[in-house]
Amino acid sequence: MEQRISLITLGVADLGRAKEFYESLGWRGQELERTVFFQAGGSAFVLWGREELAADCGLPAGRADAFGGVCLAHNVRSRAEVDELIAAAARAGATITKPAGETFYGGYAGVFTDPDGHPWEIAHNPGFTLAADGTLTLPDFTA
Amino acid sequence: MEQRISLITLGVADLGRAKEFYESLGWRGQELERTVFFQAGGSAFVLWGREELAADCGLPAGRADAFGGVCLAHNVRSRAEVDELIAAAARAGATITKPAGETFYGGYAGVFTDPDGHPWEIAHNPGFTLAADGTLTLPDFTA
Repeated sequence: MEQRISLITLGVADLGRAKEFYESLGWRGQELERTVFFQAGGSAFVLWGREELAADCGLPAGRADAFGGVCLAHNVRSRAEVDELIAAAARAGATITKPAGETFYGGYAGVFTDPDGHPWEIAHNPGFTLAADGTLTLPDFTA
Repeated sequence: MEQRISLITLGVADLGRAKEFYESLGWRGQELERTVFFQAGGSAFVLWGREELAADCGLPAGRADAFGGVCLAHNVRSRAEVDELIAAAARAGATITKPAGETFYGGYAGVFTDPDGHPWEIAHNPGFTLAADGTLTLPDFTA
């Protein structure tokens, strides 16, 4: 298995609402057969009905509101950008579950949940390199 | 907000068990402060304690077993590779929730869940381009 993730798919209760939310944040995607696909660097970010996604995974759809055990992060280049994006998410209808503040690793971050409760951390981590195209490169932690 | 995901973090009940599972599949990461970081293309894939992750997101940890509403996918270049990876996941201790088979979009895919129930689809989708480095590029669906 190569070390990479091709698609990150979020199950959503209302596709139109979810699409509108991400569009409010500036994302642009393509809708195909009640699924929205966004190019996200070398991966794709996808919105799909929660029931359909669960069935496609061979899993019962179950609960919809508790913590799903996954957090997506969007790293930025400055603390000011963290504040800006958390504010933009709030305006787009997100719930701010953790206001922007200092992190234990010496960074600055806040967390919001999208309309389906999927958490996104917006973070400035001075230890992680972000290339001009947004590619994140982990440091060598042993160095 | 730029259109990209920097980190995908999975909450896990037992970090050692989760790390071993992904290492069995060939992934190589770095452990730092009870967190495992894997470089995954231009993003990072991270394993962290479920309670810590929930707290870091400002959310109650809640339930641990139901469908979390997120599916990760790993696309490959042939049907044979799908079969090989689903078999490798089973050997590594995954639960196969959907055996490899034809998909509604003309592809071939199977799904397994990792030791914490996080689903991964292994898919061959002839409509999605995979570069030599594994980068996935969505087609223009209107074309």
